[in-house]
Amino acid sequence: MTSELDDLFAFLRFPSISTDSRHAGDVRACAEWLLAKLSAMGLSAQLHETPGHPLVLARNAHVAGRRTVLIYGHYDVQPVDPLALWMSAPFAPEIRDGKIWARGAADNKGQMLAHVLGVEQTLRNHGELPVNLIFLFEGEEEIGSPNLAPFLLEQREALRCDVIAISDTGMVAPGVPTLGYGLRGVTCCEAIIRGPKGDLHSGLFGGVVANPATAVARLVASLHDADGRVAIDGFYDEVRPLETWERTMWSTVPGVSDADFQRASGSPELFGEPGYSAAERTWARPTAEVNGIGGGYQGEGSKTVIPAEAFAKLSFRLVPDQSPQDIMAKVSRHLQAHCPPGVTIEVRHGHDGKPYATDPHSRFGQAAQAALRSVFDAEPVLIREGGSIPIVQTFREILGADTLLLGLALSDAQVHAPNENFPLVNFEAGIRLNQALLSELASA
Amino acid sequence: MTSELDDLFAFLRFPSISTDSRHAGDVRACAEWLLAKLSAMGLSAQLHETPGHPLVLARNAHVAGRRTVLIYGHYDVQPVDPLALWMSAPFAPEIRDGKIWARGAADNKGQMLAHVLGVEQTLRNHGELPVNLIFLFEGEEEIGSPNLAPFLLEQREALRCDVIAISDTGMVAPGVPTLGYGLRGVTCCEAIIRGPKGDLHSGLFGGVVANPATAVARLVASLHDADGRVAIDGFYDEVRPLETWERTMWSTVPGVSDADFQRASGSPELFGEPGYSAAERTWARPTAEVNGIGGGYQGEGSKTVIPAEAFAKLSFRLVPDQSPQDIMAKVSRHLQAHCPPGVTIEVRHGHDGKPYATDPHSRFGQAAQAALRSVFDAEPVLIREGGSIPIVQTFREILGADTLLLGLALSDAQVHAPNENFPLVNFEAGIRLNQALLSELASA
Repeated sequence: MTSELDDLFAFLRFPSISTDSRHAGDVRACAEWLLAKLSAMGLSAQLHETPGHPLVLARNAHVAGRRTVLIYGHYDVQPVDPLALWMSAPFAPEIRDGKIWARGAADNKGQMLAHVLGVEQTLRNHGELPVNLIFLFEGEEEIGSPNLAPFLLEQREALRCDVIAISDTGMVAPGVPTLGYGLRGVTCCEAIIRGPKGDLHSGLFGGVVANPATAVARLVASLHDADGRVAIDGFYDEVRPLETWERTMWSTVPGVSDADFQRASGSPELFGEPGYSAAERTWARPTAEVNGIGGGYQGEGSKTVIPAEAFAKLSFRLVPDQSPQDIMAKVSRHLQAHCPPGVTIEVRHGHDGKPYATDPHSRFGQAAQAALRSVFDAEPVLIREGGSIPIVQTFREILGADTLLLGLALSDAQVHAPNENFPLVNFEAGIRLNQALLSELASA
Repeated sequence: MTSELDDLFAFLRFPSISTDSRHAGDVRACAEWLLAKLSAMGLSAQLHETPGHPLVLARNAHVAGRRTVLIYGHYDVQPVDPLALWMSAPFAPEIRDGKIWARGAADNKGQMLAHVLGVEQTLRNHGELPVNLIFLFEGEEEIGSPNLAPFLLEQREALRCDVIAISDTGMVAPGVPTLGYGLRGVTCCEAIIRGPKGDLHSGLFGGVVANPATAVARLVASLHDADGRVAIDGFYDEVRPLETWERTMWSTVPGVSDADFQRASGSPELFGEPGYSAAERTWARPTAEVNGIGGGYQGEGSKTVIPAEAFAKLSFRLVPDQSPQDIMAKVSRHLQAHCPPGVTIEVRHGHDGKPYATDPHSRFGQAAQAALRSVFDAEPVLIREGGSIPIVQTFREILGADTLLLGLALSDAQVHAPNENFPLVNFEAGIRLNQALLSELASA
């Protein structure tokens, strides 16, 4: 494992934070490292410019009559704040307690590099792969992949494939092989509430003008009823009800009981839409969440001001058959209609992605199950995922191929949070899984 | 004016921000400058240590049978953020458009130094003052004067006086002499809402746990009804109704119409408790305000987390006969009772101060009116103030003396906000007002 770990650590050291323009150079350096690695393995690799961060593409010599498999991943990562809560620096990877600790260890550098290193081993041991392979790695997944769909449209012929594999999701529990067949979509916006032209003294003006911090709070409070159900008109109209077999299987999947979810979250208790288990709420029900709220004095002590403005950063997780455009239209109408008097509101739309679901019992789904079974020596469980990989829906629409989700992260991976981590054994299993998967897909 | 302005600029250059422990040395340096100034004028001046920032005390040689007048002020200032909105650096005073621009120009360094310089001129011109004078200047007004009441109790005999004068409030309009006879009180707290043990991925946990940012918003939204009336049980129980003569006088006071308040605030429209004018709401009705709200991602772009915690910094302006302790008990009960499920709440109490009202037609009130009339050559208006100077109530309780509020700031002074300013003519009038006031009080 020495050289594999050396590669992973080098990959993790790039602070490739795609949302922060100050890190644009780091994102590019990370892409160039990846390009060099893929070329050195003997693949034909290229860096493709976009209006944002570059894409990295690599392929073996394709042979007619073989299956073509596209493996997707992303080399960009989430921001790291609050930095003070990290136990080791986010871009100085360390091994502690059998885990690799770094931003991106699980999401997605560790999981995607396992595929790269699996291919490297196959090439080293056998000189060739059993399939026609396309590696497609992007640097904008964490900001909604704004430039990937245009690239897919442009390169639709070159990217033609039979099936797509992605490891960017989770295992339900350590050692339990997990095949994901659904993802939530997402749509984001920021509501900016403006009142006075500048901050005001709350003694001289308190009680006379609307306070933007109060207004943003009233607006956010209008998003849910007291039970946690989303209170936006028509929000649930297009939600596909859970099937009976799903509710039955999920009730027996290890590691995803309500108690497991509570333990993993570290919350004092669970809370959410009544009538559903935690797994059902996470995998098959839509949400409205505040990702950030702010306004007024943020420092030590007190400062008696009425702030000039306040904001709420909102995201909505979507499930089949909700549409991001339809939901954002409903959200915008709701925010405008519920904006309190005395302030103005601006709603800035952010990135979005459609929800996804496929059939885990298809030919390729069964091949993925066989690969998982052989690597982990256990029966795979079939789940959906609460997270969003919008590009999976885009792959289906543009390339016409379905996606297998072979997730390797654990529920305490702390993705998008301080102290992100990835078990060493999962990294090693990922390298073997790539080899088993390409072999199974070759004959599926 | 050259030497007076030199003194004011020197005084304004100290970043004496009392709430920020990093500025403790600047607060002390400011006190020492003031001490040196008062000593050089021929007063007997001393710096008194406290557990916080020091007090500065000065007096002339007292003569039996003369009135004793205590003049209070504060040399500490509010924080300056958001710094980017200042047109010139907050601690590099400048004159533009006939105004002095700096943090503390109006609140309170400019107004208090006018008294100091008035006394300096009288001493220079006449060799003595017409009254026994006590200057009492503190460095903790902006953090609630935690060490002033203990000092007053300890020095009760040395500080015995007939009347107190403070210039730390406003004039209703340029050139309109204004006597304040009431102040709002205040009580502050911070509500900290905690949920998951760390920030969570909103895809993996969204819909399963309570979001602290949503919870803090729901809590803040519970503080008011939709019309802007405070919705805390019993909040208005002890509020003294406005007297008819006050509503009549205030309706004719220049510069405080609803349109004036709206223009000064820069808000799109006025908003607040129904049934009262803006002046009545500001001067005689209590409020609940959010001075700061925060939680989750605050940076550029988006980050799809469920934050581990969120906070709201709250302050409540009080009017006679509300008690800070009673209101804070009601606020705490309300916050605990309205805390949404799935999170925990901690309520940290901050500083407080009682509301105040006195009779503007008393002997000393009439002397103050005469001094204002002579300096401004116009009939004074009688108002209350929306701001809080809690120490005024404490003076009454410990020293048994009432306080005259001879405010010189204008409504666009931007106190507690970026671009604080104070007209040069008000600074000059303040120097003359000190001389007229001591003369009138000597014979009152």
